[in-house]
Amino acid sequence: MKYSHEKLMEEKVFKDPVHRYIHVRDRVIWDLIGTKEFQRLRRIKQLGTTYLTFHGAEHSRFNHSLGVYEIVRRIVDDVFVNRQEWKQEERLLSLCAALLHDLGHGPFSHSFEKVFNLDHEQFTQQIILGDTEVNAVLKKVAEDFPKKVAEVIAKTYANKLVVSLISSQIDADRMDYLQRDAYFTGVSYGHFDMERILRVMRPREEQVVIKQSGMHAVEDYIMSRYQMYWQVYFHPVTRSAEVILTKILHRAKYLSESGYTFAQEPVHFYSMFNGHVTLADYLKMDEAVMLYYFQCWENEEDAILKDLCSRFANRRLFKYVEFHPSNEQMNKLMELNTLFKKAGIDPEYYLVVDSSSDLPYDFYRPGEEEERLPIHLLKNNGEIRELSRESQIVDAISGKRRTDHKLYFPEDLLRDESTKKIVKRQIRRLLDLPE
Amino acid sequence: MKYSHEKLMEEKVFKDPVHRYIHVRDRVIWDLIGTKEFQRLRRIKQLGTTYLTFHGAEHSRFNHSLGVYEIVRRIVDDVFVNRQEWKQEERLLSLCAALLHDLGHGPFSHSFEKVFNLDHEQFTQQIILGDTEVNAVLKKVAEDFPKKVAEVIAKTYANKLVVSLISSQIDADRMDYLQRDAYFTGVSYGHFDMERILRVMRPREEQVVIKQSGMHAVEDYIMSRYQMYWQVYFHPVTRSAEVILTKILHRAKYLSESGYTFAQEPVHFYSMFNGHVTLADYLKMDEAVMLYYFQCWENEEDAILKDLCSRFANRRLFKYVEFHPSNEQMNKLMELNTLFKKAGIDPEYYLVVDSSSDLPYDFYRPGEEEERLPIHLLKNNGEIRELSRESQIVDAISGKRRTDHKLYFPEDLLRDESTKKIVKRQIRRLLDLPE
Amino acid sequence: MKYSHEKLMEEKVFKDPVHRYIHVRDRVIWDLIGTKEFQRLRRIKQLGTTYLTFHGAEHSRFNHSLGVYEIVRRIVDDVFVNRQEWKQEERLLSLCAALLHDLGHGPFSHSFEKVFNLDHEQFTQQIILGDTEVNAVLKKVAEDFPKKVAEVIAKTYANKLVVSLISSQIDADRMDYLQRDAYFTGVSYGHFDMERILRVMRPREEQVVIKQSGMHAVEDYIMSRYQMYWQVYFHPVTRSAEVILTKILHRAKYLSESGYTFAQEPVHFYSMFNGHVTLADYLKMDEAVMLYYFQCWENEEDAILKDLCSRFANRRLFKYVEFHPSNEQMNKLMELNTLFKKAGIDPEYYLVVDSSSDLPYDFYRPGEEEERLPIHLLKNNGEIRELSRESQIVDAISGKRRTDHKLYFPEDLLRDESTKKIVKRQIRRLLDLPE
Amino acid sequence: MKYSHEKLMEEKVFKDPVHRYIHVRDRVIWDLIGTKEFQRLRRIKQLGTTYLTFHGAEHSRFNHSLGVYEIVRRIVDDVFVNRQEWKQEERLLSLCAALLHDLGHGPFSHSFEKVFNLDHEQFTQQIILGDTEVNAVLKKVAEDFPKKVAEVIAKTYANKLVVSLISSQIDADRMDYLQRDAYFTGVSYGHFDMERILRVMRPREEQVVIKQSGMHAVEDYIMSRYQMYWQVYFHPVTRSAEVILTKILHRAKYLSESGYTFAQEPVHFYSMFNGHVTLADYLKMDEAVMLYYFQCWENEEDAILKDLCSRFANRRLFKYVEFHPSNEQMNKLMELNTLFKKAGIDPEYYLVVDSSSDLPYDFYRPGEEEERLPIHLLKNNGEIRELSRESQIVDAISGKRRTDHKLYFPEDLLRDESTKKIVKRQIRRLLDLPE
Repeated sequence: MKYSHEKLMEEKVFKDPVHRYIHVRDRVIWDLIGTKEFQRLRRIKQLGTTYLTFHGAEHSRFNHSLGVYEIVRRIVDDVFVNRQEWKQEERLLSLCAALLHDLGHGPFSHSFEKVFNLDHEQFTQQIILGDTEVNAVLKKVAEDFPKKVAEVIAKTYANKLVVSLISSQIDADRMDYLQRDAYFTGVSYGHFDMERILRVMRPREEQVVIKQSGMHAVEDYIMSRYQMYWQVYFHPVTRSAEVILTKILHRAKYLSESGYTFAQEPVHFYSMFNGHVTLADYLKMDEAVMLYYFQCWENEEDAILKDLCSRFANRRLFKYVEFHPSNEQMNKLMELNTLFKKAGIDPEYYLVVDSSSDLPYDFYRPGEEEERLPIHLLKNNGEIRELSRESQIVDAISGKRRTDHKLYFPEDLLRDESTKKIVKRQIRRLLDLPE
Repeated sequence: MKYSHEKLMEEKVFKDPVHRYIHVRDRVIWDLIGTKEFQRLRRIKQLGTTYLTFHGAEHSRFNHSLGVYEIVRRIVDDVFVNRQEWKQEERLLSLCAALLHDLGHGPFSHSFEKVFNLDHEQFTQQIILGDTEVNAVLKKVAEDFPKKVAEVIAKTYANKLVVSLISSQIDADRMDYLQRDAYFTGVSYGHFDMERILRVMRPREEQVVIKQSGMHAVEDYIMSRYQMYWQVYFHPVTRSAEVILTKILHRAKYLSESGYTFAQEPVHFYSMFNGHVTLADYLKMDEAVMLYYFQCWENEEDAILKDLCSRFANRRLFKYVEFHPSNEQMNKLMELNTLFKKAGIDPEYYLVVDSSSDLPYDFYRPGEEEERLPIHLLKNNGEIRELSRESQIVDAISGKRRTDHKLYFPEDLLRDESTKKIVKRQIRRLLDLPE
Repeated sequence: MKYSHEKLMEEKVFKDPVHRYIHVRDRVIWDLIGTKEFQRLRRIKQLGTTYLTFHGAEHSRFNHSLGVYEIVRRIVDDVFVNRQEWKQEERLLSLCAALLHDLGHGPFSHSFEKVFNLDHEQFTQQIILGDTEVNAVLKKVAEDFPKKVAEVIAKTYANKLVVSLISSQIDADRMDYLQRDAYFTGVSYGHFDMERILRVMRPREEQVVIKQSGMHAVEDYIMSRYQMYWQVYFHPVTRSAEVILTKILHRAKYLSESGYTFAQEPVHFYSMFNGHVTLADYLKMDEAVMLYYFQCWENEEDAILKDLCSRFANRRLFKYVEFHPSNEQMNKLMELNTLFKKAGIDPEYYLVVDSSSDLPYDFYRPGEEEERLPIHLLKNNGEIRELSRESQIVDAISGKRRTDHKLYFPEDLLRDESTKKIVKRQIRRLLDLPE
Repeated sequence: MKYSHEKLMEEKVFKDPVHRYIHVRDRVIWDLIGTKEFQRLRRIKQLGTTYLTFHGAEHSRFNHSLGVYEIVRRIVDDVFVNRQEWKQEERLLSLCAALLHDLGHGPFSHSFEKVFNLDHEQFTQQIILGDTEVNAVLKKVAEDFPKKVAEVIAKTYANKLVVSLISSQIDADRMDYLQRDAYFTGVSYGHFDMERILRVMRPREEQVVIKQSGMHAVEDYIMSRYQMYWQVYFHPVTRSAEVILTKILHRAKYLSESGYTFAQEPVHFYSMFNGHVTLADYLKMDEAVMLYYFQCWENEEDAILKDLCSRFANRRLFKYVEFHPSNEQMNKLMELNTLFKKAGIDPEYYLVVDSSSDLPYDFYRPGEEEERLPIHLLKNNGEIRELSRESQIVDAISGKRRTDHKLYFPEDLLRDESTKKIVKRQIRRLLDLPE
């Protein structure tokens, strides 16, 4: 039998707390899950440092990837199958792209990419197309199959319907992570009627559309997403941990470039520091490795690296105040900068502005930052209309970006009056900290 | 104000997926959570290798410890408070013991302890009594407070009622882990009406008792526990991962003792290998460190260490067959041992019998292995009766130990017919593997 | 002991699917639940005819009333107690008002009140103040206690804080029914984090306010409410059943006034027909009685009454089309009216426009229809701000009334071409019904 | 197209709180749901008087019937389809039998049948085979189709596999009611992993079997059932309401037979009283009708009927004490009987022994009361074994009948010392009531 059509003797079933069960019948999917590049996702948390705020959020990207696969499987096998707008030969491609879409994520992805100027999407492409176990499995399907999978994930694949299954404003990716992250954090947001949404999805040439009768379920989904962003993903305590993490990586890189002699040499990091990261280097990086180094670095001589690593490991995070980038506040920030230096606290590492920004939903504006496809409704008369034209609630919030800035600093150092008492008091007054 | 009575200005609340919220008002508890020994529990999974079977089971012992604390807090603050049999001065002691009862667990605790002959309970005692942040916080309450906390956890504390809150056949520890492990694995077992059980708990001199009216909820709890043991904790795939892990540690120790030169020196392991483990050594050990070494060891020269580490990281586990320790089967095992050697597969590492055994519930039999206190019911007339004398269901299963043996081996190696084809076929026939 | 302070020997606990348990310790509350006026609420469904759309919605107002009581109990006993802005002497009053607030509802309340021009709020007042078991219990607390309870429910009580617990835009009434109705219908809307909202409620002179930190939970609550209105409460199939019910009552009244001789005399209805309803008459009316008559009336001679009763009992409802009250559509409606008469289908009973309208949230506009108090947030600096000024989402939907009109008719009669074939075809064409 | 194969243009979906959605694609099923005999089930509660103990238990048999249908639909469409042991032509038969299996239930079925010596199973047969809307729909499928459906429900159908879907010790009936009754009462028992059980069901000639791998899920189901029986179905407060209901019907019958003149003539009951119940009479009986009479009878002259009806409507139930049918207790009962008469409280209506008894699970014992088929496991080697031979837990409870007797009486009357003070005190002493 052709490998692409090969079925397992007995269906494999994963117990999943979010979707109850994840079903695998295709030999290709089973083999992909068994590759070492996919198993590596077990060692990368789905929500990075969020577990320091919501202790339940310790779930990995492995979990999420299976979940996205399962949602796409249900769409194509239970809803699209036998519909003329759906080409059954895109089925396996869709499943593989869903399973592998996050394959290139690094440890604590957000900070990691920012500091080392890496892009997980590029690494996803490399893993799929390079000399890997994943590539070997995909190639057994067809010579050009890895390329197709990579294109779907890169959104360049010709059949936009397939692309839209995993990247639009209501795709399997988002539907899985909202529910999964809500489940593991335990927050009461993040719930919406996915079963209903799946049942009213219809394949159209350019994208998945949603039958009008499912509009309210979609409204609910959009509100869930909005709440999850501000309640979970942008939680200020998580951002504090993220700030510290970023500064650890910055410091290590700086020290390495300055010729500092590490007690624990950052072997795994050298290629990240010098900017020539091979796929093999990248794949060795996971959160266990990163935490191993942080533990070792708690004993380094460099006071800043040592302190930041200890803060991260032991959750001694920075505090924050609201910050609005007005002239007045920018002046205050510069003043604080000077005072921090006077107090012997390096502001480059200890005085950080962090911003978060989200667009709850948007209609399509080509060329703009958020280019994910908007949601389209299929009316009873066959007409297709963009969601915000039909939903009063969605229209009300559509295109309204919300941004939030905070200023982070180590309050404990500022409270320690054994040294620099006067300047620290000045700082505290400027930051409106209680006496 | 006395430190032991100090309350936080504003109650701290942790979002918890199992108990919804975990409430902290006591300064002592807040300070304990912030110690580095307690934060270390974030880097140790509650269920060790179970995540390789149930992918959701990635939660840490940090999670569980907060949960046990919260259950005891609800018992003492909502149920026991103002009852004459309860001494309010034991409140803080109970909370601290609940929070800290698992403090000494090592990474992948089960295998780790077995191979290195360590005992996490001893390390719990050392952390509480030794030179640690935890000890410093406890000592601020009273000079003898660390000792008391240690005694409660060691079950030697005079007030057995306090001890029974965290160690009996229905204690806060078990009630938390059953629910929590069910939640994160996603299995449908593990649910019982804890709220009901808490409401009918009553303090008595020697232990917590349960009002007769809660008997059915307790029966349900016992059945949940039974199911969780056989469905989750003793799952044969988890045991396979555990077998491999054990063998990795054995091999590394053996190599070290044999003078093998490691490419990645097992610095963190030396004291475990030589049996003189200081508290500082122990506390450095967490799962990130362990996984770091396993990754490095995938590149060692030693073929066995390398293979086992790769199996663990990439989830290429051993398969198993049922095994009953009869004469006949023991003979077969010896035969297999010989054949494995012939096939060039070292049976010491690749042919392993693993046994699991559980007692669903037991009345008290002093001196026997399972010494946890049995459950006592408080009848309406004030009489106290051991559970199995009242519950037909519990009586039916009481004291009935169930044991299960399995034989683990690497099926993939036995299938590889590039070498030793004939002997491998013999082995496969003996193991009843399909052709 | 004073009756108002009397506690039950043992707390009574009701198992409740929504709040898990409902706790009663006060003798007064226990006695009120045991009155026959309160037990009567078991024979009145919370959602009237909704069970014909959502089959799970068979729960009674008895359920909901206990739920509202429990929420207020949690607010006053767990959150407000010991706060200086809260007067403990208002506790029992608040609990009684919560429990009794819906006492005067009639069977299938909405239609019943409309047709007979009755007001359930007036009957609630009469039951509390009149010669009833409820009044007798309340009077045992204090001579003026029934009056106080009645005032809280009528919103005329001086202490507006107490009033706001059961009538504001975020009161115990709404919080219970949203969750309860979601639970019994099984829809996925209606969930919000009530536990969080309760914890951040604070008593202020004029009303309950919500701490700023709970704003997102409140946003979620408002969105839930919006979804429940349009997905459940205004569901067009439910409205169809409501239309038929209304027409049954209209017809029975009309027949009675026209001197028609009923086979089953509408004894229980006489006072409703003639407009002089005593409290005793009213209390005899429940849904069992109403359904009994409907069953009997299926055998009346009057074809319209007979048909409508049979439709209701056997769920042969009217179909509907969208209807916008434009000039054009009004003309069409008049045309349909004429054609229905020609077809021998009395349009007074068989051609009905029904409208629904809701305001998702509103700031306060005195004198306007929806006078429920808006929601106020308590900021960290002690300032109080109306919700829509702080929440972008709520501001976006605030004050935006949504209205929906539908035209109902018996499609089956129009399809029956055994008579009046031509005119029925005309009607169907006008209504855009498929051939 | 043949009616039996006709599909709805658009699948109909019912929102169900237990199974999330109930799916109907077959025209036959849709038409059956629309019959008046099926709609009548909306007016009969699934759990009779249980709502007086668990206020949430107000759900109807309509709900449950849809649920059983849905479970069978999932078994045959998702699990059995395409298996050779399954004959696809039995599909519609199975679905219809599942939907209609409870069609003949009367109001408050248990007491109603007992007093009037009726059998709901006989009426189910009559409705299916007689001159009804249900029969008309079934006959459109095939002339002998009603007979087949009736046979499946009567367990006389030749294909025992089909029978076992709705009547065995693990059938769709039980799986639905356990979950549904748990959901509506809100108890935490009644949960088990139905999805898992469905997935491991396999069709065999004589019955459904369960793959060995699902054994633990089945154990959990059996324990759930056990708990639901003793916690919910046999709850002593529910049995008290049942006792009163039975006595009302007895009294009304007795009065009617004695020539008593009713103010409200029991028209609907005449045929029940005289034992010649036609199908039409029976179908008119529902709980609305029954409650209507009870309300009227609260104003009858007969003191006993009046009192019992008022007790039922207003939940003034009997209290109970444990009762063991020993010689000693039987003597006590006779003594009480005499004393009740002396006290002017008719023991025939006011002193009642009620017994409950359940067998948690049983292997097959032909000819005995509980003849439902036992559960069989399908082992990996193809062997089929009765459950209790494989499961230690099930073996422990198998065949162990548990029985419970209680003695019910009106404590309020015994406390009223305005008359017969001395004899009432004697009674209270005999019953061990607190002074």
